[in-house]
Amino acid sequence: MRENMNEKCAVVGIFGHKEASKLAYFSLHALQHRGQEAAGISSADGHKVHTIKDRGLVMKVFNEENLRTLQGSTAVGHTRYSTAGDDSILDAQPVFARYDLGEMAIVHNGNLTNAEKVRNKLIEKGAIFQTFMDTENLIHLIAKSTKGKLLDRIIDAVERIEGAFSLLFLSRTKMFAMRDRHGFRPLSLGRLPNGGYIVASETCAFDLVGANFIRDVEPGELIVFEEGAAPQSIKIFKPTPKHCIFEYVYFARPDSSVFGQSVYETRKNMGKELARIEPVEADLVIPVPDGGVPAAIGYAQESGIPYEMGIMRNHYIGRTFIEPTQEMRDLKVKMKLSPMADIIKNKRIIVIDDSIVRGTTSKRIIRMLKEAGASEVHMRISSPPTTDPCYYGVDTPDKEKLIASNMSTKEICEFIEADSLTYLDEASLLRSVNATDESYCTACFTGKYIV
Amino acid sequence: MRENMNEKCAVVGIFGHKEASKLAYFSLHALQHRGQEAAGISSADGHKVHTIKDRGLVMKVFNEENLRTLQGSTAVGHTRYSTAGDDSILDAQPVFARYDLGEMAIVHNGNLTNAEKVRNKLIEKGAIFQTFMDTENLIHLIAKSTKGKLLDRIIDAVERIEGAFSLLFLSRTKMFAMRDRHGFRPLSLGRLPNGGYIVASETCAFDLVGANFIRDVEPGELIVFEEGAAPQSIKIFKPTPKHCIFEYVYFARPDSSVFGQSVYETRKNMGKELARIEPVEADLVIPVPDGGVPAAIGYAQESGIPYEMGIMRNHYIGRTFIEPTQEMRDLKVKMKLSPMADIIKNKRIIVIDDSIVRGTTSKRIIRMLKEAGASEVHMRISSPPTTDPCYYGVDTPDKEKLIASNMSTKEICEFIEADSLTYLDEASLLRSVNATDESYCTACFTGKYIV
Amino acid sequence: MRENMNEKCAVVGIFGHKEASKLAYFSLHALQHRGQEAAGISSADGHKVHTIKDRGLVMKVFNEENLRTLQGSTAVGHTRYSTAGDDSILDAQPVFARYDLGEMAIVHNGNLTNAEKVRNKLIEKGAIFQTFMDTENLIHLIAKSTKGKLLDRIIDAVERIEGAFSLLFLSRTKMFAMRDRHGFRPLSLGRLPNGGYIVASETCAFDLVGANFIRDVEPGELIVFEEGAAPQSIKIFKPTPKHCIFEYVYFARPDSSVFGQSVYETRKNMGKELARIEPVEADLVIPVPDGGVPAAIGYAQESGIPYEMGIMRNHYIGRTFIEPTQEMRDLKVKMKLSPMADIIKNKRIIVIDDSIVRGTTSKRIIRMLKEAGASEVHMRISSPPTTDPCYYGVDTPDKEKLIASNMSTKEICEFIEADSLTYLDEASLLRSVNATDESYCTACFTGKYIV
Amino acid sequence: MRENMNEKCAVVGIFGHKEASKLAYFSLHALQHRGQEAAGISSADGHKVHTIKDRGLVMKVFNEENLRTLQGSTAVGHTRYSTAGDDSILDAQPVFARYDLGEMAIVHNGNLTNAEKVRNKLIEKGAIFQTFMDTENLIHLIAKSTKGKLLDRIIDAVERIEGAFSLLFLSRTKMFAMRDRHGFRPLSLGRLPNGGYIVASETCAFDLVGANFIRDVEPGELIVFEEGAAPQSIKIFKPTPKHCIFEYVYFARPDSSVFGQSVYETRKNMGKELARIEPVEADLVIPVPDGGVPAAIGYAQESGIPYEMGIMRNHYIGRTFIEPTQEMRDLKVKMKLSPMADIIKNKRIIVIDDSIVRGTTSKRIIRMLKEAGASEVHMRISSPPTTDPCYYGVDTPDKEKLIASNMSTKEICEFIEADSLTYLDEASLLRSVNATDESYCTACFTGKYIV
Repeated sequence: MRENMNEKCAVVGIFGHKEASKLAYFSLHALQHRGQEAAGISSADGHKVHTIKDRGLVMKVFNEENLRTLQGSTAVGHTRYSTAGDDSILDAQPVFARYDLGEMAIVHNGNLTNAEKVRNKLIEKGAIFQTFMDTENLIHLIAKSTKGKLLDRIIDAVERIEGAFSLLFLSRTKMFAMRDRHGFRPLSLGRLPNGGYIVASETCAFDLVGANFIRDVEPGELIVFEEGAAPQSIKIFKPTPKHCIFEYVYFARPDSSVFGQSVYETRKNMGKELARIEPVEADLVIPVPDGGVPAAIGYAQESGIPYEMGIMRNHYIGRTFIEPTQEMRDLKVKMKLSPMADIIKNKRIIVIDDSIVRGTTSKRIIRMLKEAGASEVHMRISSPPTTDPCYYGVDTPDKEKLIASNMSTKEICEFIEADSLTYLDEASLLRSVNATDESYCTACFTGKYIV
Repeated sequence: MRENMNEKCAVVGIFGHKEASKLAYFSLHALQHRGQEAAGISSADGHKVHTIKDRGLVMKVFNEENLRTLQGSTAVGHTRYSTAGDDSILDAQPVFARYDLGEMAIVHNGNLTNAEKVRNKLIEKGAIFQTFMDTENLIHLIAKSTKGKLLDRIIDAVERIEGAFSLLFLSRTKMFAMRDRHGFRPLSLGRLPNGGYIVASETCAFDLVGANFIRDVEPGELIVFEEGAAPQSIKIFKPTPKHCIFEYVYFARPDSSVFGQSVYETRKNMGKELARIEPVEADLVIPVPDGGVPAAIGYAQESGIPYEMGIMRNHYIGRTFIEPTQEMRDLKVKMKLSPMADIIKNKRIIVIDDSIVRGTTSKRIIRMLKEAGASEVHMRISSPPTTDPCYYGVDTPDKEKLIASNMSTKEICEFIEADSLTYLDEASLLRSVNATDESYCTACFTGKYIV
Repeated sequence: MRENMNEKCAVVGIFGHKEASKLAYFSLHALQHRGQEAAGISSADGHKVHTIKDRGLVMKVFNEENLRTLQGSTAVGHTRYSTAGDDSILDAQPVFARYDLGEMAIVHNGNLTNAEKVRNKLIEKGAIFQTFMDTENLIHLIAKSTKGKLLDRIIDAVERIEGAFSLLFLSRTKMFAMRDRHGFRPLSLGRLPNGGYIVASETCAFDLVGANFIRDVEPGELIVFEEGAAPQSIKIFKPTPKHCIFEYVYFARPDSSVFGQSVYETRKNMGKELARIEPVEADLVIPVPDGGVPAAIGYAQESGIPYEMGIMRNHYIGRTFIEPTQEMRDLKVKMKLSPMADIIKNKRIIVIDDSIVRGTTSKRIIRMLKEAGASEVHMRISSPPTTDPCYYGVDTPDKEKLIASNMSTKEICEFIEADSLTYLDEASLLRSVNATDESYCTACFTGKYIV
Repeated sequence: MRENMNEKCAVVGIFGHKEASKLAYFSLHALQHRGQEAAGISSADGHKVHTIKDRGLVMKVFNEENLRTLQGSTAVGHTRYSTAGDDSILDAQPVFARYDLGEMAIVHNGNLTNAEKVRNKLIEKGAIFQTFMDTENLIHLIAKSTKGKLLDRIIDAVERIEGAFSLLFLSRTKMFAMRDRHGFRPLSLGRLPNGGYIVASETCAFDLVGANFIRDVEPGELIVFEEGAAPQSIKIFKPTPKHCIFEYVYFARPDSSVFGQSVYETRKNMGKELARIEPVEADLVIPVPDGGVPAAIGYAQESGIPYEMGIMRNHYIGRTFIEPTQEMRDLKVKMKLSPMADIIKNKRIIVIDDSIVRGTTSKRIIRMLKEAGASEVHMRISSPPTTDPCYYGVDTPDKEKLIASNMSTKEICEFIEADSLTYLDEASLLRSVNATDESYCTACFTGKYIV
């Protein structure tokens, strides 16, 4: 159960389907775990780009009536995470603009590392910025490009930005999908059942609308979707993959494939690798649901220690604003997670979670398990210590709030009151994802950022 | 009762009060008759410009919590009317921008007649437009101006725009109030009870916050508000007043003074003038509430015919989406207006309304009065026939939907099934507002637009 | 502007119309000024009684979908006022019950003075009470009556209750309308345009649905509506009318006729009578809107002093929960009422209101007028001093909170800071309503309650 | 994933805690899986019984403000399931009544089999019924009992009712907990951390508020809670246990203990038993989440076949009212459940679910798995075929809609398009719950109802 690192966004594009905006809508449902604070869709009908966006869940923002106004056979959609207090809290995507070539809408998953520099340069030249999203840079770059055609301008624009970006551009007649040279964030291409294409942050969106996975959009690749022609692939940048390994650790849905591999399988691998490190005698392996489930299954299979649902996740609650009574400790965790006292009483248990961010939730979970009668609680984390913030599209706390950047594993173990604590090491993590080269970004565990 | 011409906006600015955004909030309540579809406030605290805006009534958009985040001693606010189906339906003001001089927010009441031309020119030069509000032109013009200081850039910008504008600009430390050379839309200056200034579309906002009226911002005048200095007046344009006479006819609140005169008194004058035209023998003078009340009082005083509330306005209803039964005619009008059968039965009545736009409402009212027993219904309109659309900030139907642009008064009289119909003529209208020269815009009655 | 005495309810019954519940729905809209806290409708389709009720405005409680479930050609409806903190705050009507004769629903406007005694007796015999509405007594009395037929049981029941009641009973096939012997609360009978009947608290409901007034249900009369027969009138009690005179003073809508007379005309009469008492030299007569409007018109006609809308009522506001700033005095009144400064400045004005309950609102209004420049403010009240609470269906403050029960008129005048204060005396009030005998209840002015 | 049999209610009682209603509130959160359509709490402060109840989730019905009004150290709470179209859809509990001994509130989990007979008898004697809940019978029986004391009346009342009932009675000073002689529905007793008691439908409520399990309220037992005395146990009926075995199969939360045993362990036992029946060669065991998880874990442990999360439950969605496109089959299931294509592709899988009610959901799940590439799908159900409706407090479809009452297992297998289908047999089920005698009700599998 983690509340402190969050994928910032998801994107989806539909090309060549007469109910494009409806397919985008359902796809956003599937992608909503990547951002629940705002949602939006732009569609293009050949003549005009229509946009609806607002704060709130996908199902709140859209209804049968306003979806109907999003006409056309092409659509791009976006769901968005935002941090309270963030300047951009009210912003939503798609970003829409009228400019010299007509109308355009952009959706963006990622984070531009040179956003401020680019923005300042644009502002110097007289541009105005009306939102706090770095995506706004892109429409300026395209509008101000001296190239003639949109395609050339997009190329011009993406050559001026740095960082992580999985982008979809919508014009009145075309759609473009683009991924940065490192391929930080995932982006996959699929075929719709009756013709047409879908591009989405995760393949779980394909399953819901009945699309088939074709391949990932490649790092550095731009795909042009145009009526009457097959999608055209243009390699803008030489690919130097640095896939976000945290997608496997936590963000992506287990039923998705990202970066060419099953998320669920990869998580199971992490659990298996973890089982080989500092083994401990125990009666049960239990996950912190839902994040820890696949790794716990892998851990159990590898260690031979029985797997049990020792912690239940309660799905019926919403947020309560009622103050608990004095006696009610750790209510926030207990409203979501319940210990299975009958299973864990007097048992030595290994608890699997995907990561520890601030440590307070782990502490509460362990206390809850001990109060429920566990005789020993061994914490196993299916990723290395999270020591460094992310600059490539993930919302992370400041470095000083990351417990692993301030404490040793031993100290963390004491803080969370576990009987033992083991993290997965970087090498094992990379093995879990079948990394044969340096194609993954592990900066949040190592501080080694791509320059 | 009119539903077809609507003031598009109201603005308010507060300078030099530690609870500036709160005063802006209450002022917007008083100005909400000028636009109920969206509301917003930007405040400046010397370092940053904070903005909150959303669709909905003022009281829905703001709460104690979000108002608290609008810190600083300067604030500008806006309420907005929008037409369903309009491209700009989702837009709200203030328009905020980061640009080379920092941050700025603008609120605008009016309509720029050269907006498209200016926008196209800006777009040619690489500008992007993210909203459908002509106000967006202004921030571009300011950002792109080659002048160094904001003041000079504002002057530069307003020199490039045409049409009607009462504008407030907010920077991190200053506020600017500007009115077009014709002074189409009202804008008044007041002093706050404990120091500080207020600028607002109508003086009714002053009353609510306890401010005192100083004077109108003059046509063509720019007032600069800066800490530690008295407001500085700069005459940008030679004033050639063309005040919107419809403010007196309908838009402004009767407790406001606009263009230097009491709205209520002016409306009473219209009623008195009307009484002198084609007098008719009648038992009662009754207003269509609320718009017709002051003119009806004036008409009664002048004619000596007793004034009565022959039609009641029902305040308790909201919109109902329930379909009426077959027998229930004219429900939409009847939900809002009820005839006082006991008063009007067998009476010859003179009904005073401020204007006739499409004619259908008048027809329903007259039918309702006749069904309630009126023996004669003489319609008297306290303005000339509305024949032409407005391009200066009022939302009007297309010319072909304006009944007076397609029918003679006699035909209208037949259409609405009145026993007689008289409009106020232009000369009488101008007398009512004490016009001594050509200082009023009467284009909606005459089609004579300012070039 | 009064916030302290409130009509507790309104009822409506529709008989013999295939869209009975829809007509009830629209009628409740017209009657909503008599209670805005809850609404409900029961319909009968010959086999079953269907009920929907909830807290909130009529338009919030009902929608096209749930109205459709209220099938049948008979329906009774209710709107309800409730006081925060009142035990019955969650209760809504109709009161529905299954009992030995089948199913029944009751709506009630009034107050039973022997409710507690009756309830205690019923409880002694084993009855249970599930709500805090005295109406619940009635269903018990009917259910427990030893008579065989519903009609006889209703007669049996109403003979055991005392106080004020305008009641509608709905069985699966019939409707019954009943009014107490004093006829405290109004109840009128009308004919629907295409056949069928309507019974409602006020005739304004008739106008909205196109019904024609036939006559009042008489004090002590029971009317039986049954298919295939004309409404049958049964005189249960010898009528001894004591109509609530406050209906004329304040509660009823001016476009209604109650107790056989036009409410508006009666209010005008009060104004005329008032003009004859302690006349004062003044420049203007102005009403406190909306309550004081008809009396002010009457006062002006009688006195010859010009009538003006010196106070405007602001219709655009809702409740704001934002705390005003220190300088903003009397905000609560000012949000609703604005002084027309240009009209009242330096004028001696006579202000007409319908009543003074606690005195604080009057004080704020007078202060507001003086701050707006009135040189003299003479308060004239179109009813006698309200000295005593009502036990017949009106929500009144406790006697000690009624300013007139604690202060002389002179003291009240000083308290509200008026230059003079005059109430209408009881004799003049009775003349205004054309009372030729003792057929009105004036207990709230005299303390003389019917025993 | 089941949508067709639903526990009707949950109850909770708190005695002897100064924040009794707050503890009841949090307990209802934990019990909300037993009913999400309405919620309510009554509290007693020695003088009065206070009640708040409404439709909607617990967190919607209550807020800090209205909880504060529920004063006193005793409280009873209720959450409620209701079927759309049901007459009682608007009803909520607690049922409150004023009666000859004062005030009382009742909450009820169960179903009275002689409700109609009792009600008719009560109605014959003049009782009225204002709701459609059989619980209303009880307050009548208590009110009409000829006994003097409440305790004796409760005994008198429960002796007249038949069926399933776990009841809590609240008077102004006492609380009573009662369970029917068969103990159909669970009811457990616990001790609050700082003194005081809790009685709740499931022990998961204890965990949230920090209470310790003492024991179950026994079948036929009445426990009296009174200040200054230990809880007093009275055996009203000779216990003849017939615990609802479906609580183990599906209703109860896995972290609860009901009828003296861990729900989770019991479900695992069912899985183990199931693994011994008609074993099949397969690659994976996967649960239909969440219901099938514990049984699948048991099945995997017993069979040695690897356990995998082959179906993911999507927690982010809400209800969507948007119509899918033509190509989107089985959307309703797919919005909630996603197949893990990478895991199940080309695999022979055993799918574990807790029961099959109508068969349509199972059919969709199997189709989804096959489309995702499963080579064989063997359905295993951890309970016997559901052939008969429940009359003891569970909402079940009519017998003709239960697929197993109309088809043989072979036919069902064909209908759902599984490669094989096996149900748990009754003997194995009873073994799973350690039944040593006939202490369980299995009527929904056998049609053998207690007479």
